[in-house]
Amino acid sequence: MQLKNATTKRWIAVDGGGTKTICVIGDEQGHILSKAIGVASNIHTISHQKVYKTLTDIMERVIVDSGSILEQIESIYLCLAGADRDNDKWIIKNLFKNTVYEQKIKIKNDAQAALASGTWGESGLILIAGTGSIVYGISTTTGKSTRVGGWGFLLGDEGSGFYIGQRALKAVMKSYDDRGPKTELTTLILNHFQLQHVPELVRIYSGENIVPNIAKLSKIVFSAAKNEDPVALEILENAVNELIKMVEAASQKQFESKEDVLVLHGGLFSDSLFKNLFLGKLKSIHQNFKIVQPEIPAVIGAYLLGIRESGIIIDEKIKKNIRLSWDETNFLE
Amino acid sequence: MQLKNATTKRWIAVDGGGTKTICVIGDEQGHILSKAIGVASNIHTISHQKVYKTLTDIMERVIVDSGSILEQIESIYLCLAGADRDNDKWIIKNLFKNTVYEQKIKIKNDAQAALASGTWGESGLILIAGTGSIVYGISTTTGKSTRVGGWGFLLGDEGSGFYIGQRALKAVMKSYDDRGPKTELTTLILNHFQLQHVPELVRIYSGENIVPNIAKLSKIVFSAAKNEDPVALEILENAVNELIKMVEAASQKQFESKEDVLVLHGGLFSDSLFKNLFLGKLKSIHQNFKIVQPEIPAVIGAYLLGIRESGIIIDEKIKKNIRLSWDETNFLE
Repeated sequence: MQLKNATTKRWIAVDGGGTKTICVIGDEQGHILSKAIGVASNIHTISHQKVYKTLTDIMERVIVDSGSILEQIESIYLCLAGADRDNDKWIIKNLFKNTVYEQKIKIKNDAQAALASGTWGESGLILIAGTGSIVYGISTTTGKSTRVGGWGFLLGDEGSGFYIGQRALKAVMKSYDDRGPKTELTTLILNHFQLQHVPELVRIYSGENIVPNIAKLSKIVFSAAKNEDPVALEILENAVNELIKMVEAASQKQFESKEDVLVLHGGLFSDSLFKNLFLGKLKSIHQNFKIVQPEIPAVIGAYLLGIRESGIIIDEKIKKNIRLSWDETNFLE
Repeated sequence: MQLKNATTKRWIAVDGGGTKTICVIGDEQGHILSKAIGVASNIHTISHQKVYKTLTDIMERVIVDSGSILEQIESIYLCLAGADRDNDKWIIKNLFKNTVYEQKIKIKNDAQAALASGTWGESGLILIAGTGSIVYGISTTTGKSTRVGGWGFLLGDEGSGFYIGQRALKAVMKSYDDRGPKTELTTLILNHFQLQHVPELVRIYSGENIVPNIAKLSKIVFSAAKNEDPVALEILENAVNELIKMVEAASQKQFESKEDVLVLHGGLFSDSLFKNLFLGKLKSIHQNFKIVQPEIPAVIGAYLLGIRESGIIIDEKIKKNIRLSWDETNFLE
């Protein structure tokens, strides 16, 4: 077994986010051989030393678990949240200086991995709408990349879960003050926090994880919108408009072709009402987007970037192997 | 001197905010005898022990400096930021339990002191637009009070310095992304932070005092509006509309009379362009407000509440004494 393995090449791929980091190792035929999960790895929120430990731990685990040896590893594609600018990439690269991994490391941001998971490594745009929001585009022919948005909850994140949740809270406060219409959101949000009175919502300021906790309120806005609450519907309409403006801006910077691939990613699109609102509005303005929701996770996108760069063409056989072996990897978990 | 002083009654008043706390002591004729300044005293942001120390230190100082004795003190009016709800007042009251001050303490929030400084203790509404925004109203005939807004930078503070500064930052990011119009704000804000490139503005997240620092950008928006930058003008117009909605809501809850006093307070109104935008818009909708900008500080408002409650009528002689002695107190500083 060890001997046979030693003859084949291997690629390591990592998708690192604000809450967890996933690592896989695969071969040149699309077989995902092993998977490991660690904690968050964003260098802007976690100490660099801890990020290094998280990354090396999960990389070692997939190497050992898959019975691989270091010499087999062609490349290590680290696609990490917070790896946006050259300086970020330089910092991460430096963590691996004088280690056995140094020569194999490639650094991209996590949006690139998510995009590749929707396009199987081809050109396209990705709209990520979760706690935050960002549009990322890459052309594999020109190598040109674009990003729009993703400036965080204070400077940007229009149309995101945070944006929706915060507008819901503000609507509840305005309604309480008699300077905004009554809304079902009041009861739903008070129940969610198990509070009796609207002014008690200011407790949010002393809580932890305030940004993701506000973003989670978007689920409540979806519920109220399903009951046709006009305030909830207006919030979602504004969010959809902001997201479409981001896609438009990125598309104009990135593409000249008639049909663009647009990958939808992030928690908001798992709600069918929100997805349909978005698609309905987008189609009424633009007919030239081929909409894709990824069938494989972002970490496999990172793996696709790796094998693609080694000159491997991602054909139907490889796609089939990926799907099967990924299911198996998860089944064994 | 000591003997003569001992025969007159004294009132202590405190105006406590998020950055400093001012304390005065005055007699029944409007003579402000002494003043002391301490650090912030908001129980929601400062330890209760430290708030207690700050308050007792400045109270002791004005008592000693004015040559007063404890028996002369009729009441101590503590008007504190963060003293909004019954529970807040209970906490502050408890700090003074079993102390010599216990029986004399009255607790109000700082907006009530600011209102009284504009109305000389009479009924009215106050709109405070600084880092945050709030409308507070009180009727001295019915005793009824109202508040609208003031929910903090995440849940409220519409039309405030923070609201204006954040919108300016978002406009700069949108312009950079080509999903918003070009604006003079970009150059002005980059210069302000001494940055070269728009994406570097995300550094704001790792800075301290992020909310007041964003609020301070409102000055830059005023500058751009003076140069007729359309983005800056639109931000200010939205801010003015939000503030007017707050005043309207409070006015409808509070008053039935034809002419209401509206006190304007807070840093935004020290800009003449902003004040004129606000007054112009307000007058186009409502003619029934008598607009007042206080000529005395909020801590004197707190003192007025104190002497008024003791049955003293605030006549022209008392007003004159207050103005003269307040100027003198500041001159001696």
